[in-house]
Amino acid sequence: MLDAEAALARAQARLGAVPASAAAVITEAADARRLDARALALAARETANPVVGLVRAFTAVVAAADPAAAEYVHRGSTSQDILDTGTMLVAARALRLTVADLRATADELGRLAGEHRDTVMAGRTLALHAVPTTFGLKAAGWRSLVLDSADRLGRVLDHGLPVALGGAAGTLAGYLEYARLDGATGADETGGYLDALTAAYADETGLARPVLPWHALRTPVADLGAALAHTAAALGKIAADVQVLARTEVGEVAEPAPAGRGASSAMPHKRNPVLATLIRSAALQVPVLSAGLTQCLTAEDERSAGAWHAEWTLLRESLRLTGGAAHTALDLARGLTVDPGRMRANLALTGGRIVSERVAAVLAPRLGKAEARRLLSEASGRAAGEGVRLGEVLAALPELADVLDGPELAELLDPAHYTGAAGALVDRALKR
Amino acid sequence: MLDAEAALARAQARLGAVPASAAAVITEAADARRLDARALALAARETANPVVGLVRAFTAVVAAADPAAAEYVHRGSTSQDILDTGTMLVAARALRLTVADLRATADELGRLAGEHRDTVMAGRTLALHAVPTTFGLKAAGWRSLVLDSADRLGRVLDHGLPVALGGAAGTLAGYLEYARLDGATGADETGGYLDALTAAYADETGLARPVLPWHALRTPVADLGAALAHTAAALGKIAADVQVLARTEVGEVAEPAPAGRGASSAMPHKRNPVLATLIRSAALQVPVLSAGLTQCLTAEDERSAGAWHAEWTLLRESLRLTGGAAHTALDLARGLTVDPGRMRANLALTGGRIVSERVAAVLAPRLGKAEARRLLSEASGRAAGEGVRLGEVLAALPELADVLDGPELAELLDPAHYTGAAGALVDRALKR
Amino acid sequence: MLDAEAALARAQARLGAVPASAAAVITEAADARRLDARALALAARETANPVVGLVRAFTAVVAAADPAAAEYVHRGSTSQDILDTGTMLVAARALRLTVADLRATADELGRLAGEHRDTVMAGRTLALHAVPTTFGLKAAGWRSLVLDSADRLGRVLDHGLPVALGGAAGTLAGYLEYARLDGATGADETGGYLDALTAAYADETGLARPVLPWHALRTPVADLGAALAHTAAALGKIAADVQVLARTEVGEVAEPAPAGRGASSAMPHKRNPVLATLIRSAALQVPVLSAGLTQCLTAEDERSAGAWHAEWTLLRESLRLTGGAAHTALDLARGLTVDPGRMRANLALTGGRIVSERVAAVLAPRLGKAEARRLLSEASGRAAGEGVRLGEVLAALPELADVLDGPELAELLDPAHYTGAAGALVDRALKR
Amino acid sequence: MLDAEAALARAQARLGAVPASAAAVITEAADARRLDARALALAARETANPVVGLVRAFTAVVAAADPAAAEYVHRGSTSQDILDTGTMLVAARALRLTVADLRATADELGRLAGEHRDTVMAGRTLALHAVPTTFGLKAAGWRSLVLDSADRLGRVLDHGLPVALGGAAGTLAGYLEYARLDGATGADETGGYLDALTAAYADETGLARPVLPWHALRTPVADLGAALAHTAAALGKIAADVQVLARTEVGEVAEPAPAGRGASSAMPHKRNPVLATLIRSAALQVPVLSAGLTQCLTAEDERSAGAWHAEWTLLRESLRLTGGAAHTALDLARGLTVDPGRMRANLALTGGRIVSERVAAVLAPRLGKAEARRLLSEASGRAAGEGVRLGEVLAALPELADVLDGPELAELLDPAHYTGAAGALVDRALKR
Repeated sequence: MLDAEAALARAQARLGAVPASAAAVITEAADARRLDARALALAARETANPVVGLVRAFTAVVAAADPAAAEYVHRGSTSQDILDTGTMLVAARALRLTVADLRATADELGRLAGEHRDTVMAGRTLALHAVPTTFGLKAAGWRSLVLDSADRLGRVLDHGLPVALGGAAGTLAGYLEYARLDGATGADETGGYLDALTAAYADETGLARPVLPWHALRTPVADLGAALAHTAAALGKIAADVQVLARTEVGEVAEPAPAGRGASSAMPHKRNPVLATLIRSAALQVPVLSAGLTQCLTAEDERSAGAWHAEWTLLRESLRLTGGAAHTALDLARGLTVDPGRMRANLALTGGRIVSERVAAVLAPRLGKAEARRLLSEASGRAAGEGVRLGEVLAALPELADVLDGPELAELLDPAHYTGAAGALVDRALKR
Repeated sequence: MLDAEAALARAQARLGAVPASAAAVITEAADARRLDARALALAARETANPVVGLVRAFTAVVAAADPAAAEYVHRGSTSQDILDTGTMLVAARALRLTVADLRATADELGRLAGEHRDTVMAGRTLALHAVPTTFGLKAAGWRSLVLDSADRLGRVLDHGLPVALGGAAGTLAGYLEYARLDGATGADETGGYLDALTAAYADETGLARPVLPWHALRTPVADLGAALAHTAAALGKIAADVQVLARTEVGEVAEPAPAGRGASSAMPHKRNPVLATLIRSAALQVPVLSAGLTQCLTAEDERSAGAWHAEWTLLRESLRLTGGAAHTALDLARGLTVDPGRMRANLALTGGRIVSERVAAVLAPRLGKAEARRLLSEASGRAAGEGVRLGEVLAALPELADVLDGPELAELLDPAHYTGAAGALVDRALKR
Repeated sequence: MLDAEAALARAQARLGAVPASAAAVITEAADARRLDARALALAARETANPVVGLVRAFTAVVAAADPAAAEYVHRGSTSQDILDTGTMLVAARALRLTVADLRATADELGRLAGEHRDTVMAGRTLALHAVPTTFGLKAAGWRSLVLDSADRLGRVLDHGLPVALGGAAGTLAGYLEYARLDGATGADETGGYLDALTAAYADETGLARPVLPWHALRTPVADLGAALAHTAAALGKIAADVQVLARTEVGEVAEPAPAGRGASSAMPHKRNPVLATLIRSAALQVPVLSAGLTQCLTAEDERSAGAWHAEWTLLRESLRLTGGAAHTALDLARGLTVDPGRMRANLALTGGRIVSERVAAVLAPRLGKAEARRLLSEASGRAAGEGVRLGEVLAALPELADVLDGPELAELLDPAHYTGAAGALVDRALKR
Repeated sequence: MLDAEAALARAQARLGAVPASAAAVITEAADARRLDARALALAARETANPVVGLVRAFTAVVAAADPAAAEYVHRGSTSQDILDTGTMLVAARALRLTVADLRATADELGRLAGEHRDTVMAGRTLALHAVPTTFGLKAAGWRSLVLDSADRLGRVLDHGLPVALGGAAGTLAGYLEYARLDGATGADETGGYLDALTAAYADETGLARPVLPWHALRTPVADLGAALAHTAAALGKIAADVQVLARTEVGEVAEPAPAGRGASSAMPHKRNPVLATLIRSAALQVPVLSAGLTQCLTAEDERSAGAWHAEWTLLRESLRLTGGAAHTALDLARGLTVDPGRMRANLALTGGRIVSERVAAVLAPRLGKAEARRLLSEASGRAAGEGVRLGEVLAALPELADVLDGPELAELLDPAHYTGAAGALVDRALKR
């Protein structure tokens, strides 16, 4: 918020609405260490926002340095211009870190996808082995979600974080009145001064120029919330997969485990998958926080009595949780250990049933689709029930004696030969 | 969490599983000022919870006082027992304050309801004047919601905040093993020791005794979240009403305005309804936070890898926002200014149309319900369109010449005579 | 809604405000088959609720039977009284089914808990084997959540579903006016008539008596939503556990699979855990729907322009999804197959590390807690890394040569001997 | 879903994997009237999705026409490919209607903004009169939100609705296997066939081509949900404003009221603002539904056991509610009545205090900012308390005797002269 006040003074100084010397003093004084945060917090309750107290305290700091400059603090402004601009500055800083972490995470996942392009593993649907897939395709999928998130956050970062500049009720009347009084350049041509002040403020803050004051038009915050929710929940998919694959019984991947990481307070043997845990925790939270932010679009009047205020905590936590999750995801992607041997071993667990779809397809033209499906369904059930391999059951079926010989059956039952377009999909996905 | 560790040591000491002297040292050392919160926060990322680092640091503090006592810190315990018990202690403290504020708010609202039992005002539905009501009935309704919330939070406070005592995976095996090793009283009878330890821990903390360890059975947290959401949203109803009634055009109530309260950073004349604003802000947030908490009931295994962790921020913010809203509601109820004159003036705004329902009812047996309704509907439309009083239009209608005379019409059109059971409802509601 | 209209007419007839014959005709006519639902739906858009059109159409149905009776349809009433009472009737019917399914589910889970009181299995935390537990304790935990839900829904069913009786703006003025005109019994004593009419309406519908009209005091709906969300999410815990345990690699439980159940459109071998899938789907939805319902507590005025209307779809879907989940849970609990052999086999997967906590506890008094923990942590790491059993590593440690002999070690490493208070907990839980 | 099955057959036919005649028969048979929706719904419970039963029933329909063609129904496919493609087709149809309604709404709002570019009214913040604004600026703001929504939905419609084509676990193995067996063109070059089949399917459905199968990469659904939530909540802002402005005490706008619209079942005089009510109802619901959809990004495995299924109802209701709200918004924008006279009258309600900011600004250089503000604050308080005009109080102040003369004061206190850049902002906004 102090950065917003200082940038506003400099922007007005560019147009002659504030003396350059005053803007310099205000900028110099805009240092959070000179203010008492606790006192501001307490004062904020009295005015339902922290800006009223901040302006009072900051004016005193400026006045101590130069009483004349203090006249120009918050000139023509309103609480929401400062709080919203400050929020956008915080969001921009947080998003830059978060997007960088996501891009680096995507790079690591791309590396994993390439290294394991042909590492065969069980594809799982509804918690059960379905047909084979590859770990490369899984990692490529994770990467594509991470890039989706990075694109969405990047779009917000590049165009979606505007300065707030509206004055008391979104008409900029206060700014214009002071500009007129101070004989600012072009202050007699309202539209031109509006454009010039908006441009100068955007330039001083590095934020975007809004078409309209957005005190009660909250697309920037709703978009930010939606992109953060996408990110947290998309990272949650990686975490959910890692948790499945790291289970004691599955053991196909392991989290990086530097000393002390993942320790339990009770069990000396545990190395908990803490990175996936932290990410999934964020994934459970940010979407509901974002729902709250989106609802704040429904803001009555020129400034809502509550919907604006409800954004603050929701957005702060969304930025923190999502930024943390992205950082954690990078740690996870960078250090994830993959165990192709265990993947192969697990692939064998169903004794060939994992490729029942393929055998049914091959038999369809020979027996009819329905009959092929019925036969495979029964044979699979028998194999599972008796604990024998599907191949054994099939080899013994009289119906198949003339339509499927041993060598073809053996070939069909090799999971490594039934990965479909997995490799080609990885190649295409990595081009993104 | 330190209170939980200390209470656990004392509970074990009662049963002879920890020396009394060690429990005393541990209790004495359990002082948050001796720990470095920032270091604990950083360490927490490595283990996905703060307890592992806390136990390490706290053990060092105890060891500095008495190395032998340090052996008994966190004895047989697990992170979740400490964090959950700590959370329940925080919740209990917060709820006691919040419930007290709600009960005091209800008292103030009861006072308002009594004082304004017969203060007539416009009843409003879908934003328009409907039929008359009384401010007493409105305040009695607010009070009833506040009591609903206080009852729900009180129920949680009285029975719904249990100690957490499960050990590594909810079997208490660690506690029992140490008890056996330490020759604790009754340690050879598992069920008895379980009961005794649970009772002692509940007693030392003032929390409730759970039937089962609830590491992955999260009813206590979900109930807490639901009661907090009810409270914030119910207080939001009061805030929404106050915002309507405080509007410049309505002006029927005003918030208390001590010096500085409600100031604007731009407009010297404003006294913003900041209390209602803060409350409505909380009302917009807590229900979505609570949805997140309820979802955490869906926790896999003996301890979830994420759902447990997602509760922490959601619950903290729910407690803060709701507690703040209750405190603010008390300020609001205590100082609310009511303007019966303005209420009467507003009641006249529709020129009698606000009692069209009554006239239709009286005419129904005389003209038939449908005809009475049609006639009133047309007359109301004409009165509104021409800006005249409904009475004038009705008095000029030939259809009514024989069925409604002037004195009866005048009586029917007095809003103060059409408040139905408002007074009786206030009387009944205040008996609660 | 027709049941509500009919009950209202009968209630008024009891007090002499409506002729008994009219109430009989109205009751007889209250048959949804006589109305055109599609036409009512289309008409509902014009009035933002379906009652205005319903009253018109229903009045015509009654008039066709008896024109005089038609005068008494919806007498003194308002849309919200009818829609809300209708909603409560629907909720009561749905809750009765849902609670019955939950109680039956709890019975089945109690049976499972009893049968498997001592069936040892791996306790899992953060997705990894932690320490042993029993399937009985897991099932007892599921049962306790189901009973929590049944209790919460039962409380709503028994006391939380009131008739809606307020008239146009919650003062019952219309009811009283008609009663006065019709010379109803006691109509001259407002409070008495209010009580009598409320009692008669509650009696005719089987719903509860509210203290105040609750058009804008929405505790009944918020409570209902919260209890439904608890139920869906609590059942989700069972589903999440079943999904873990049914995984191909874990295989400890299986869903009941009558012919056709769980079939895949692609893979003949699959028997998908569809019951758990359906339940978890509901668990993901109802809590967010319930957040919407709770927010509707924040309803301005005597009737909100939107918050009331937002409840309808959210509540309908919450009732449907939760009721469906409860019914599905009963199927699941009734037919769940448990495989104790596979549980034992999985328990051995970590080669004894699953009881590292116990060994550390036993060694603590002999070596000091910190040293015991360090030693077990290292030994566990070595055993996991080298793929050998923990017992082998420990037996070879010189530090343990004098403090732990072979027979004691073997005893300590038996997972079946380290289930803590699991059995006693089951016993206690089943008493509920 | 039938359209998806037919398009899939035609796409495969293009590549020689299905006979053209079979594709024609399948397309001809794909008519929902030939299936029993209720039977399919009941069967869906057994397989946790409706596709298994649909394929069975649809195959029978095709077989009745041509048994040979029936072999090619759902060839190589999986339930999720059909359900997701069907969902995208439904979404595309709904979005086209919704976006058209939003664009038409924006046109109407643009017309209102232009017509009322200089219609002065009170700007309101925190429920109170703040400084003047114009109705044109308010309407321009509404339009900008509607265009934001249309842009977001349009982006989804243009690029964000892909066909689903993955086969059993996202590798397209089944499609490839059948293509190989059927000697389809290019079936021996996996990557090429993948590209060709995806392109053909996209072409046949009019949907987008995904880079990867998205069975468990749910960006399309999450994006759709987020854009729908933005739309519903943004329209909610218009509704909330209309509700404020339509209040009996404010009366600055009125909803269009064709005969029967807005009728009350109790009160003949009411013309409820039903359009705003319906919109606000949707605004309260869709954001929480969308939170559920975003959470479904956290989908484990190659197909989630529940997160996929949870999308269906949430998405259906989101499309319905948002589409309805957009349609309603068009009605509202098209027929909204604006009352500039009432706006002027309301602007006078504060007796000039609404421009206190301006007077303070003008006095700041003459008295110092702090002193000017203090003076205006006190004078405003006195004017409000005594019920006199601010100008009277100011004119009597000795401090102002020398610094502000009567004519200047009169000019400063005219609200119509203090609308800042409102007109210029409207001009700029309408260029979008």
